[in-house]
Amino acid sequence: MTAQMTEEWLDAAFAALADPTRRAIVSRLAHGDATVSELAAPFAMSLPGISKHLKVLERSGLISRGRDAQFRPCHLEVGALDQTLDWISTHRQIWNERFDKLDAHLRGLRTGPDRRKGSGS
Amino acid sequence: MTAQMTEEWLDAAFAALADPTRRAIVSRLAHGDATVSELAAPFAMSLPGISKHLKVLERSGLISRGRDAQFRPCHLEVGALDQTLDWISTHRQIWNERFDKLDAHLRGLRTGPDRRKGSGS
Repeated sequence: MTAQMTEEWLDAAFAALADPTRRAIVSRLAHGDATVSELAAPFAMSLPGISKHLKVLERSGLISRGRDAQFRPCHLEVGALDQTLDWISTHRQIWNERFDKLDAHLRGLRTGPDRRKGSGS
Repeated sequence: MTAQMTEEWLDAAFAALADPTRRAIVSRLAHGDATVSELAAPFAMSLPGISKHLKVLERSGLISRGRDAQFRPCHLEVGALDQTLDWISTHRQIWNERFDKLDAHLRGLRTGPDRRKGSGS
C-alpha cells in the first residue's frame, strides 16, 4: 500500500467511525457476524437507512459482506480496525516517549547538585 | 460525561482525524507544542487554511491553544486521543475474546474423543 493509499484509507476509516450508528454496528459485529435485519433490529431505522451506513463501512474496508445472496451477513474486518488503532497508538507512543525523556531530564536535575542545600533553613 | 456526550465527542474526534492535514498536525504535536506558523511550514497551505483545520481539531478537544496572545501555541490533548484509542481497543478486545473462545472450543473438540482413531489407516 502506498503512503497516499494509506492516507486515503485512513480518511475513509475515521470518517466511517465518526457516526454513532456506524460505531454501534462495528460494536455489534465485534461480537459476531450479523445480517442487515439483525443489525437494524436495535435501531429505530429503516433497512435502507441501515444499508446506507453499511455501504459507508464497506467502502472504508472496516466490514465485508458475505456472498450468500439472500442474507449477505456482515463481517468486521478486524485487520482494518487495527490500522486505525496502529495510527493512534503510534502517536500516543511518540507523545509518551517525549514525556519519559522530559521526566528523565527533570529527575536528572533533581539528583544533580542541589543548590538549596546550605542555603540555611 | 453522559453516554450521549461521549457519542458526540467521538463523532467530533473521529471526524477530526478523517483528514490527512489534520492527522499530520496531530503527528507534529505529538513531538511537542507548536505555533500556527510552525505547523503551516511543511504544508503548501495558507495560514487561514491551517487555522481552519486547527479550529476543527480544537472543537473536537484533540488540541488546545495556549493563552499567549501573539503565538497561541497548539498542544495535543493526549487524554482526548486516548478516548478514541480506548473505543477502538475495546472493540478489538471483544473480537479477540470471541476468537479466543472459538479457539478454545476447537481445541476442546480436538482433544476430545478422536473418532479417527481406530478408523484404520
